[in-house]
Amino acid sequence: MSTDQVIAELTALLGQRITQSPSELELHGASETHFPLMPPDAVVYPRDTNEVAEIVKISARHRCPVVGWGTGTSLEGQAQALRGGICVDFRDMNRVLQVRPADLNVSVQPGVTREALNDELRATGLFFPVDPGANASLGGMASTRASGTTAVRYGTMRDAVLGLEVVTAKGEIIRTGTLARKSSAGYDLTGLFVGAEGTLGLITELTLRLHGQPEAIASAVCAFDTVADAVATTMEAIQMGLPIARIELMDTDSVSAVNTHSGSALPVKPHLLLEFHGSDSAVAEQSAFFGEIAEAYNGAEFQWATKTEDRTALWAMRHNAYHAILHARPGARAIVTDICVPISKLAEAIDETRKDLADAQLMGPILGHVGDGNFHAILLIDEKDPDEVARANAASQRMVERALALGGTSTGEHGVGLGKLGYMQAEHGDAWAMMGAVKRALDPDNIMNPGKLVPPTN
Amino acid sequence: MSTDQVIAELTALLGQRITQSPSELELHGASETHFPLMPPDAVVYPRDTNEVAEIVKISARHRCPVVGWGTGTSLEGQAQALRGGICVDFRDMNRVLQVRPADLNVSVQPGVTREALNDELRATGLFFPVDPGANASLGGMASTRASGTTAVRYGTMRDAVLGLEVVTAKGEIIRTGTLARKSSAGYDLTGLFVGAEGTLGLITELTLRLHGQPEAIASAVCAFDTVADAVATTMEAIQMGLPIARIELMDTDSVSAVNTHSGSALPVKPHLLLEFHGSDSAVAEQSAFFGEIAEAYNGAEFQWATKTEDRTALWAMRHNAYHAILHARPGARAIVTDICVPISKLAEAIDETRKDLADAQLMGPILGHVGDGNFHAILLIDEKDPDEVARANAASQRMVERALALGGTSTGEHGVGLGKLGYMQAEHGDAWAMMGAVKRALDPDNIMNPGKLVPPTN
Repeated sequence: MSTDQVIAELTALLGQRITQSPSELELHGASETHFPLMPPDAVVYPRDTNEVAEIVKISARHRCPVVGWGTGTSLEGQAQALRGGICVDFRDMNRVLQVRPADLNVSVQPGVTREALNDELRATGLFFPVDPGANASLGGMASTRASGTTAVRYGTMRDAVLGLEVVTAKGEIIRTGTLARKSSAGYDLTGLFVGAEGTLGLITELTLRLHGQPEAIASAVCAFDTVADAVATTMEAIQMGLPIARIELMDTDSVSAVNTHSGSALPVKPHLLLEFHGSDSAVAEQSAFFGEIAEAYNGAEFQWATKTEDRTALWAMRHNAYHAILHARPGARAIVTDICVPISKLAEAIDETRKDLADAQLMGPILGHVGDGNFHAILLIDEKDPDEVARANAASQRMVERALALGGTSTGEHGVGLGKLGYMQAEHGDAWAMMGAVKRALDPDNIMNPGKLVPPTN
Repeated sequence: MSTDQVIAELTALLGQRITQSPSELELHGASETHFPLMPPDAVVYPRDTNEVAEIVKISARHRCPVVGWGTGTSLEGQAQALRGGICVDFRDMNRVLQVRPADLNVSVQPGVTREALNDELRATGLFFPVDPGANASLGGMASTRASGTTAVRYGTMRDAVLGLEVVTAKGEIIRTGTLARKSSAGYDLTGLFVGAEGTLGLITELTLRLHGQPEAIASAVCAFDTVADAVATTMEAIQMGLPIARIELMDTDSVSAVNTHSGSALPVKPHLLLEFHGSDSAVAEQSAFFGEIAEAYNGAEFQWATKTEDRTALWAMRHNAYHAILHARPGARAIVTDICVPISKLAEAIDETRKDLADAQLMGPILGHVGDGNFHAILLIDEKDPDEVARANAASQRMVERALALGGTSTGEHGVGLGKLGYMQAEHGDAWAMMGAVKRALDPDNIMNPGKLVPPTN
């Protein structure tokens, strides 16, 4: 590989839109969490799909790694340039291409963020539901198969993506899917690229399903005496088929951190944060039904928010919880765990995790999308304390092992990246080798985000 | 390839559970629709996954084709043995393995039919929603990515399958997915096998999402003066986000055929058949809302069915419509079209199809899952009339071309098989070659249902 030659050719193509400035390389080699800096050799800012195709063709000729970049908010080091190469930043491919209100879908470039999309949709009466918290790019969200607070009702990016335009590892431009709501026409390539973390190609356009803005929305917070009660309430609501739009757990430590950081005054107890979407009467009916379940588990101090500004404040508080928790231990870095278990095993998984963290003397507030069986312990570590780092890594590993033993997954929504690569064999068995076979077929020279997701080959 | 040797080895493995009886070979080489007989060389009846793995290993050693078989109800010749070989009939792998009511899922063997599953689930309060009409096997439904009347509310087999056990082309046994409701752990191999029509491996176990039986169900039929009015009503209901559970169109010819065959006495006009699922109040609210839309398009003679036996009769009538239509022209064979278009293009697609069929002097009643934008014209042909056969094939091709031009797909739910193979290049462009690359990676000797789905190689 001749990186200098690649950069020379890319400079001829892109002019000022390629950079090797140290600050940009550092920015694009950094992690939101605890992974060390892994900078690319250069960052490029393509303006359209044809430029992306040319960038990949040039890189492919020299077998130079290509890594996609959205907003850098992935939590497992997905976009870090493990082997250097070219970072393709989709900052300038940020247009909403076509809203099709009558078909309830929209086509966007990959650099559009979810908040920017929803701003653009506001006047149409439609919205895009997938909400991972961070204002991530939609290309990045598709690549990591993101989900978040609303997945319990509207599904994950797997469900949200109707079709894609992709630049392959050879620099070809292909389209997957159609504008129809369903199809049986061959392999689900759309589904293959969603969650592939840029290892099979770069997403250059997405067609996304939209939903009508609900007639009524009601949000609520509800305090419980114990995490077990909050979880039992969640399990029962899900098992009864209540079409709840959001149901989020924050444990006592999370609530404390949020109160301090966001100025909220929640009782320092475990909480569920909830939302119901539907017609006025449906929302009222669902809320009442949920209230009965919560009451049976001593849920108290139910506070309803139906005004837009109150709801916005509530979810902003939830979305800031990660940063609030980071601030709870100044100077700490985070190992963000992300297990997801069958809903029937949720109480057991959370309870054992809490005991384990206490035994290991680790600070690890728990919060999560409990309606999906998905939760995070944010392990706060002092990176200068090797013993603590080792204890945190060991606890994170035990969480994964526990999830797999319970029939769950090492990652509900954050993806594999660098952080979960070591668990893929245990989770998938021989199916992991099959992922490697798919990778070799579509990227034989291993240039697309090399070293990630599939079994190592070189 | 030495078929005799394969059969000798399989006989040693399976004893009486391999057959070459002419009647069995004919049965397993026949098509539900218009494709000519393509018998396998032998039919095997494995009892468990290990036997399936051994069958594939023996076949693989001799590069002998392997074709899966469920109930033989696919409509595009998917399970026909284009190149002979071994037909693996899953008749004896028909056990419901584990119902997990608290997790809303179930694990089944591939030979379980959807009706058998729902019989088994009845006491649990849960049901499996995907309903293609035929009492198909769940392995077959997954393999063709089936959908049907309830997809508008509950999704297709893409949405219904949580995980799989698969015997690969090498005879290895792998598992995809977990019991968790979501995961971001690598490529979506589950989604890759769903819709692969047995070209990448044989499904030997499925874990399927279940839903709670709704508190209330209301079905209805509603007559319209024109197909256009019925379609406009459908489009508006979908665009308003009404969570309708079923919405089916039958045109006048379909209604006539059904009246004759099923003894119903529907007015001889286009109809919508509907169903609403939810709480009592939600169903009442949705029904009223739908009624207002229908009234604006002169929908009349609304007949409600809330009693179980009336609803069962209604949907039995709908499910028998294909056979009713076949009987409308004694001795005819059917070319079953299956296009699916964006909902905003549905009126245009149906209208142009009707005019085209009239111009071509073809008998082609139309019915379909219009809430998804998916409909079928059942082209009734006299196979002894080559001119009519040619006209029907040409009309079928024009339907596909029209669907693709409108942003839709050649097949909404029936799959590719033999009937739609010729349209894959037009529908997918270069993405079709990518499907071929995936196939070669996972089945390099091309033994799994060869000659289907991907670009021909030999």
